[in-house]
Amino acid sequence: MNAGVKKDYLRPLDFKHGRVDMNHGAGGRAAAQLIDELFLRAFDNPALRAGDDGAVMDIPNLPPGHRLVMATDGHVISPLVFPGGDIGCLAVHGTVNDVAMMGAVPFALSASFVLEEGFALAELKRIVESMAAAARDAGVPIVTGDTKVVEKGKGDGVFIATTGLGALPAGRRIGGALARPGDRLLLSGSIGDHGVAVLSQRESLGFEATVTSDTATLHGLVAALLAAVPEGAVHTLRDPTRGGLATTLNEIARQSCVGMRLQEAAIPVHAEVEAACELLGLDPLYIANEGKLVTAVAPEHADAALAALRAHPLGREAACIGRVVDDAQRFVQLATRFGGERIVDWLSGEPLPRIC
Amino acid sequence: MNAGVKKDYLRPLDFKHGRVDMNHGAGGRAAAQLIDELFLRAFDNPALRAGDDGAVMDIPNLPPGHRLVMATDGHVISPLVFPGGDIGCLAVHGTVNDVAMMGAVPFALSASFVLEEGFALAELKRIVESMAAAARDAGVPIVTGDTKVVEKGKGDGVFIATTGLGALPAGRRIGGALARPGDRLLLSGSIGDHGVAVLSQRESLGFEATVTSDTATLHGLVAALLAAVPEGAVHTLRDPTRGGLATTLNEIARQSCVGMRLQEAAIPVHAEVEAACELLGLDPLYIANEGKLVTAVAPEHADAALAALRAHPLGREAACIGRVVDDAQRFVQLATRFGGERIVDWLSGEPLPRIC
Repeated sequence: MNAGVKKDYLRPLDFKHGRVDMNHGAGGRAAAQLIDELFLRAFDNPALRAGDDGAVMDIPNLPPGHRLVMATDGHVISPLVFPGGDIGCLAVHGTVNDVAMMGAVPFALSASFVLEEGFALAELKRIVESMAAAARDAGVPIVTGDTKVVEKGKGDGVFIATTGLGALPAGRRIGGALARPGDRLLLSGSIGDHGVAVLSQRESLGFEATVTSDTATLHGLVAALLAAVPEGAVHTLRDPTRGGLATTLNEIARQSCVGMRLQEAAIPVHAEVEAACELLGLDPLYIANEGKLVTAVAPEHADAALAALRAHPLGREAACIGRVVDDAQRFVQLATRFGGERIVDWLSGEPLPRIC
Repeated sequence: MNAGVKKDYLRPLDFKHGRVDMNHGAGGRAAAQLIDELFLRAFDNPALRAGDDGAVMDIPNLPPGHRLVMATDGHVISPLVFPGGDIGCLAVHGTVNDVAMMGAVPFALSASFVLEEGFALAELKRIVESMAAAARDAGVPIVTGDTKVVEKGKGDGVFIATTGLGALPAGRRIGGALARPGDRLLLSGSIGDHGVAVLSQRESLGFEATVTSDTATLHGLVAALLAAVPEGAVHTLRDPTRGGLATTLNEIARQSCVGMRLQEAAIPVHAEVEAACELLGLDPLYIANEGKLVTAVAPEHADAALAALRAHPLGREAACIGRVVDDAQRFVQLATRFGGERIVDWLSGEPLPRIC
């Protein structure tokens, strides 16, 4: 079926010294070779191997009433490689997590690459293999993809857009609009690790930190959480990525028309992250995370939910950080460590661009 | 649920003179405003309006045995606007067509945008509205999306990656590997229109043509074709985009381990396209199309299939252009207008970059 490019036409790709050129995006033999020798080899699965315009999948064996969840995310992180990960695994983690935050079980991914002319094939291979490993670890195959090439100076190495599909069990309703006054807010671990790890690699900032990104897939943690409480006890799930915990909580407050009260002392922040933020004049509440979730849980099930998070390797530092309150103004308020109160607003001011 | 950004914080976006800035990608209030005032307004549908990390959909009401098709495509066309379309409608058409080429009925799209800092909001709005209109016309909603912003000089206006989902009826098998010796090759219309329309807009080429892109969704044409013949009569369907008809037929020949014999005189090429190709030293067989399909059909049903194509507005110029033959070397051969024979190879040589 997949007979390979005839050897008399093309030499194998040079993954040591070769570079992406415009031919790799033109849809001809060079494009086919890149797909065969790099993407197919790394992502190998029957749907992809068929080599058609799309992937055919059996609809997962679902009882009646299941619904489908679709999530998409573009990844333009700079630099492409950072302590704890790279754009490849991040593109898998980010989209698997978006599907998981709906309460769905992810089962397929697609990937669309925009490559810049001149990008080293060695670096591309490393990223694609990291992506393949992340997909394997997550148990979610990359079933279809696309590759385009833009001229040098019209892109930035590689951008990756991933789309994920998940199956949502019948009757499950989890969403940003479903938080209710009284709900407890649980956070699965420390904040700011991903953003600080990425910033530490930007030369212009001239600081060094030993912080590692928390990038990880959270569908296992979500499954453990949902198994520990009755259906309906978890109202909202979200991963506080761009804009950080502060922005994510404001989004939920806005969608659910509620306020929130947080305890600063309860929010886990690693000492190195705290130190880096102080140095850079940043607030960890606004720094991106890639392996954390925040959830609004019915108060009577909050203890069981917290115990389930803490029992999972990705939730060891989970904490109850506050609660949802009735507030027509939808303010997120923080009781500071020093006994004060402040309003935690959306991210505004200086953005931290290309953090994911 | 979707309460809107508070008016006291931000003035409405200035779609006349405003430009994309890094804040629009930082995940904070400016990003939320761009989503509210542009994307949500244009693409409006319940799944998107929920404002969550992903879209929840009912699995379309399918008899048992239906399967799911997923296709993805990145769009980096340059220029962004061309005679007959723009990157917005193209991003919808291209992905709807990839789903349709599997024989599936498209039912949802996702869209991921990479915007370049400084890009005019007026131009973005025009593109997004064109995309929304294309999705409406196709009857396929854009249910979820994502927006990232990269610094000026690290992108090129806007890139759009779309992913499409379709439902494949039980027992339907259509694919690039299923063409068989004896099959007739039907083409739904003239070739080269899209590529020549785009090239005509590139100043560096200094030529003018009145050619309009053929960009269109083909799922209606596919439905008409499939309704006209028994299930199983259509073996392969593909839209000859990048690399043109020549490359698409070589891909099918490779996947199916067959050869092909084409009649040059039977392949429709508009006179303006022919003239432009002559001027530019290009072969229409290698020029991209965005609203055409080529299909391999069992010979006993070829007449009915051709009649069905011709009866549809998008297939008026459909023609039988040749047949599939037994050939271990998988050559695509062309009987020229002048009585000669030549091998039609994959696109190699000079690529035509960023044509879709």
